[in-house]
Formats: sequence, structure tokens, C-alpha cells
Amino acid sequence: MTDWERLRVEERVRRSFARQSFMAHLGAELVLVEPGRVEIAVSRAEHLLQQHGYLHAGVLTSLLDSACGYAALTTMKEGTGVMSVEFKVNLLAPAAGERFVARAEVLKAGRTIIVCRADAFAVDGNAPRLVAAMQGSMMAIHGREGVSD
Amino acid sequence: MTDWERLRVEERVRRSFARQSFMAHLGAELVLVEPGRVEIAVSRAEHLLQQHGYLHAGVLTSLLDSACGYAALTTMKEGTGVMSVEFKVNLLAPAAGERFVARAEVLKAGRTIIVCRADAFAVDGNAPRLVAAMQGSMMAIHGREGVSD
Amino acid sequence: MTDWERLRVEERVRRSFARQSFMAHLGAELVLVEPGRVEIAVSRAEHLLQQHGYLHAGVLTSLLDSACGYAALTTMKEGTGVMSVEFKVNLLAPAAGERFVARAEVLKAGRTIIVCRADAFAVDGNAPRLVAAMQGSMMAIHGREGVSD
Amino acid sequence: MTDWERLRVEERVRRSFARQSFMAHLGAELVLVEPGRVEIAVSRAEHLLQQHGYLHAGVLTSLLDSACGYAALTTMKEGTGVMSVEFKVNLLAPAAGERFVARAEVLKAGRTIIVCRADAFAVDGNAPRLVAAMQGSMMAIHGREGVSD
Repeated sequence: MTDWERLRVEERVRRSFARQSFMAHLGAELVLVEPGRVEIAVSRAEHLLQQHGYLHAGVLTSLLDSACGYAALTTMKEGTGVMSVEFKVNLLAPAAGERFVARAEVLKAGRTIIVCRADAFAVDGNAPRLVAAMQGSMMAIHGREGVSD
Repeated sequence: MTDWERLRVEERVRRSFARQSFMAHLGAELVLVEPGRVEIAVSRAEHLLQQHGYLHAGVLTSLLDSACGYAALTTMKEGTGVMSVEFKVNLLAPAAGERFVARAEVLKAGRTIIVCRADAFAVDGNAPRLVAAMQGSMMAIHGREGVSD
Repeated sequence: MTDWERLRVEERVRRSFARQSFMAHLGAELVLVEPGRVEIAVSRAEHLLQQHGYLHAGVLTSLLDSACGYAALTTMKEGTGVMSVEFKVNLLAPAAGERFVARAEVLKAGRTIIVCRADAFAVDGNAPRLVAAMQGSMMAIHGREGVSD
Repeated sequence: MTDWERLRVEERVRRSFARQSFMAHLGAELVLVEPGRVEIAVSRAEHLLQQHGYLHAGVLTSLLDSACGYAALTTMKEGTGVMSVEFKVNLLAPAAGERFVARAEVLKAGRTIIVCRADAFAVDGNAPRLVAAMQGSMMAIHGREGVSD
């Protein structure tokens, strides 16, 4: 992939991410886009918590899912849409921390199904601490109206 | 379980749900609490969407996860906390609709691990349409400071 | 579906099952085939165990997976092949018992992806006891050489 | 960990593996045991196949599950038993090949729950080809009769 192609891929992901209103509602940011790899981060906020004051598992999953979806999208041709088929999340430690980063990687890019793994880390100035792990499948959608990148 | 006990269980779940700031941020409501069964609903809103205008998979997962957690909590003794261990979600259809209801049931209530299944439906006046399905494990937390119901 | 069509579906599943050499190696039997629903059973045997003397989780998963695959196949047109995309299994109790039955149902039959749920029960003369639960996706394979029903 | 401790851990895993009659029935071998990492391999055989002649997903899952269980066991104190709680498998490519190796690693070793990831590769003289990926939870069992390492 040339630098020019990389830039186009990144641009495509950034445009699509900007249309995910829910990511904005969470205050999430796209912090890295590379072919086959995407990172999304969010800062702890009072409205993102579960009953014990940790980040809600649903917030972590939202980051992990969007990161997997966009990592998958980087492997697809322009104009192809991506949708989540399924994912599994293990919650490894209470999500305490000031900032959370989800890092997704493509494990296998098939024609239709793209399988990704993603890890979520809590970051507080100390070493990042792994708090959740996802393994999931994304689907490439061709020629369905309203579903492009 | 006596009616009195049922009411106390429901009260416990409602108090805990009210402390999940993220559920309020989503505009989610607890619509049913019974021993072993909980339903949570949310209305479609412009800030809960993914890039094609469907409800974000992370929102559905948040509802499904909280519903499973509280269904599990109804099987636990007062003062016990619940945390999600892991869950898996299959997305069965694009989440188009005006309102979404997640319905969780306890499949097996172990001492430590409680396994639940949950379904999410899109509702628009027509018959409810199944859009997502979860299978996951919740954990009963005893005697950890800050982690009670 | 007419009785005649049901018989053809059952016949197709039985023929395919007979070609799964691994099912024979386990001593597994196809005990029920209906549109959207399949059951496979195995008897406890000394060579199917894990280190504590329970049925190995891999045996249960094999039954659950084949049951899901064939439940999915009943929804497909003749000549279409089925392959497992992914599945998730929760092990709910130690698999003690004399006989084990996996019962799969189609939850959503899409064009490409068919999502199933399946339960495995231990049976010993007493009431069946739920020992494992699966949720997974099967894929319809069209026109790939060597991959038909 | 001293060399002596490593040897004791390996010895413990090898003894337990030898008691898994199902692994012997599959013809599976323990090819690597290190703290936090275990590999199990099997050769293709006519009785381990699904209907299209590929290795049955249940065989791959059995290897992946046992590899995860033993990787988890290496992190536990002597006398502790291990049981699978749940796992999720993505099947990434048809399991064609002469030999299959499942490689498991501990992702997070909690007191009760140990989360592992594992990959299965087909090997035929060429470069190994990734055919399946697992993410699952194992449980440490203390003081239950009949359930030790």
C-alpha cells in the first residue's frame, strides 16, 4: 500500500467515524488508523459508569466494537460497508481509570467475514492495564443501499 | 418467594439501576423486574446511532448486558454485588426501529457464576423484531468494598 | 412445508451426518431432525472424558456444533453446504451422566448467516440436567466445489 | 520461577493430560508446556472429519479448550483443579492440512477466573495457516473432591 492509499483509507475511516453519532455522545476519539489496526479512546466521565463507579461494560464494548469494525473496514475496497456480525467480550478487571483505549487488529480478512481481536486498556499515567478483550466478526456489505463506508 | 420478597428484589434492582449513570445517559428504562428476568428499553435517538443510521451495536449490548446483570442480581442475596464476566452478542438484523427492548433471563444460577441469555427486539407498532441475542456470565461478588448491589 | 419436503430435508441431513466420520468416532446419533431443529446424542464412554472423569467439553461442543450446523442446513436449499463460522459455549455444570443430548434451534435464518442456539442435557433416568449452552453462526455455502450438503 | 518449579509444573500438566482419555482418543499430543503457554497437536485422520473432509470444528475446539485449560493450570498452585467456564471459537478457514497445532496463552490470571486466548494452525510443510481462534475463561477449583490437577 502506498502512502497515498494509506491516507485514503484513514480518511475513509475518519469520515465514517464522524457519522457514528454514538461515538460523539460517548466523547470517543479515533486515535490511530492504520491498515488492519484501529484505536479508539474515551476519557472517564460521570455519565459513563455502572453502579459501582467503574466504566460501564457497554461503553468498553462500544469502543471495542467500533475499533474492530474500522480495523475491518481498512481491509475493504472503497464503497464497501461494514457491519458487526457478532463479538465476544471478556471483562478482565474492573474498569477503573482516567482514560480507556481500545486497540483492534484484523486477525483474518476473508472476502465476506473479517475476524478481529481487540484489547481495551485503562490508562492513568501508570502502565496501561488490560481491562477487556474482544474477539468478533465483521461483515463486508456490497451494494446495499445506505450501507457504504 | 413471597410478594414481599419480590418487591424487595425489585426495589434492589431499581436502586442499583438508578446508580448506573450510563443507563440514564442512554435514556434507558427498566421496564420489568421479576425473579430471574429483567427488561430494559431505550427509544431511538439521534445520538445513539452508527454510521448507517441504525442503533449502534454498543447501545444494544449495553442494554443486554445490564439486563443480564440485573436478572442475575435477582437470584442473589441482599448485599451481594454483580459484575459481568463475559458476554457474546450476535447481531441478527440492522437495528432499525423506534424503540428497543432487551429481555434477559437466567439460564443457570450457580453460586459464583450466573449464566444468562438475553434477546433484543426492535419495536415499531408492528410485531417485535429480534435484532440481537446475548449469552453471557455474571459473577456474584461477596464482601468486596464498594461492590454491593 | 409438505410432509414430502420434510422427509427430503431429513434425508439430506441424515446423509450428511453419515459423512461426518468424527460423529461416528464419538458414537453420536442423530435423534431428531425437523425444520429448524436438530438433536444429537452420545452415551458416556471411557474414551470421551476429561481428567476428572466428566465428559470432555470438546465432546459436548462437537455435538452442539453439529446440531447447530444441521439445524441451519434444514433452512437451506438443496445443494447448499453449511460451515460453522463461530460459536460460543457456556459450560453450566460438570458433565456427569450416562447420556448427553444436544438440541439446536435456528434463531434467525439469514441468506448467508444462520444464527442458532443449542442446549446440551445430561440424562440419567432422572430429569434432564442442562450442562452446556451454545450460541453460534453457521454459513450457507453456494457453489464451492466439494462443499454441498 | 526456578527450573525446578518449571519442571514440576510441566510434570503436573503432563500427568493431567494423560488422564484426559478423550485426548488419547483423538490421537492428540502435548507438544509444549511452559508457564502460561501450552501447545497440543493432532494429525489428520479419517475418523476426525466433518462432511466435506475437513477436520471437524469439534476436534479443533477440543484441542483449543484443553490447551487453554492447561495454560491456565500452569498459573495455579499444586492441587488446584481447572475446569472450563466458557469459550468462543471463530473458524477462520477450512481445516485442511496434515497436522493441526493449538497454541494457548494466558491473557489474565485472576484468582478464580483465568482468561486465555488460543490459535489453531494447519501445518503441511508450508507455513502454518491460522484456521481457528479461541477466547475463553477457565476456573480454578479449590477443595472440591475429585477435582484436582
